Amino acid sequence: MTGRRARRVAFLMTDGFDETEFGVPYDRLRRAGHEPVIVGPVADSSIVGKHGADVVPVALGAAQATVADFDAVVIPGGHSPDRLRIDRGVMAFLRAMIAADRPVAAICHGPWLLVEADAVRGRRLTGWASVRTDVRNAGGVWVDAPVVRDGPIVTSRRPDDSDVFADAILAVLDDRADDPDARSRGSLPLS
Amino acid sequence: MTGRRARRVAFLMTDGFDETEFGVPYDRLRRAGHEPVIVGPVADSSIVGKHGADVVPVALGAAQATVADFDAVVIPGGHSPDRLRIDRGVMAFLRAMIAADRPVAAICHGPWLLVEADAVRGRRLTGWASVRTDVRNAGGVWVDAPVVRDGPIVTSRRPDDSDVFADAILAVLDDRADDPDARSRGSLPLS
Repeated sequence: MTGRRARRVAFLMTDGFDETEFGVPYDRLRRAGHEPVIVGPVADSSIVGKHGADVVPVALGAAQATVADFDAVVIPGGHSPDRLRIDRGVMAFLRAMIAADRPVAAICHGPWLLVEADAVRGRRLTGWASVRTDVRNAGGVWVDAPVVRDGPIVTSRRPDDSDVFADAILAVLDDRADDPDARSRGSLPLS
Repeated sequence: MTGRRARRVAFLMTDGFDETEFGVPYDRLRRAGHEPVIVGPVADSSIVGKHGADVVPVALGAAQATVADFDAVVIPGGHSPDRLRIDRGVMAFLRAMIAADRPVAAICHGPWLLVEADAVRGRRLTGWASVRTDVRNAGGVWVDAPVVRDGPIVTSRRPDDSDVFADAILAVLDDRADDPDARSRGSLPLS
């Protein structure tokens, strides 16, 4: 972080998250000096990965998360996005982040949350093949590529895209380093 | 089956199916004298339910299934529909059944297959809440009810709707008993 401000990035996830799609960008962000924070539907809970082995604590309930606290959002895939899209607190936080033009990165089934937020209209996106029709029906333009960036929206297809997905997240955070709106935000303590 | 013809009904499913949403209508159809047949992406395979305990054999690969062989389709929920909607053989069979106006009953996440087949436009449907936005974006009219029937399409929301879902499947099969197109089909051996 030579001269760059550490960014606080919300990882929106719950039970059934894909371990690779969570672990790779989370570790890459930490190693780059940023501050990834696990945000889930329920504060003070633990969530379990898709394969049952990884159990991680939720640092902040989505209903308590605000745009003032976070610079960006990452949405890992697995069964987690299907559960998150029907959570009121999660969707309110995500919609607020999108309205504030904060970067949002979604992988695999993660783009369903962008569909739920009506944030794909006219945008180029990728994701797991099963979400393609839902993205198109929501007005998005489907692209089959390891990573796609359209403005503040970054999307990837599957676990083995996780490294290029992390590259693109780091790049979009860097691009936003000179964003005056981003610079005006402090690095607030989480609670 | 007093005076009514036994109907052959394809249960479209793969790994991750919901055990209740499969088991209840499957058993009810058998007890009523019909012939439920498990159709999956891969012939001669076994598939495992969402909770890991139920393992069932696939009787017929979807690529081998034809409209001539089946009177109706049932689509249980769970993680199975997300996998089925990207299978070419499954979708070709389902599209052919829909084009032939055969009854299709989908529960929980099952309506995603109707979205994938572009079969919800202008129709009233229900399902698990997470598919609501996808159904609406595909042109469907969302209803929150234990079971909804619109012409040949029957939908339900979740495992505890399985009994009324089965009632509605039996009713739609009975309604079709006088369908001259249905009467012209024989009861063909599966292979």
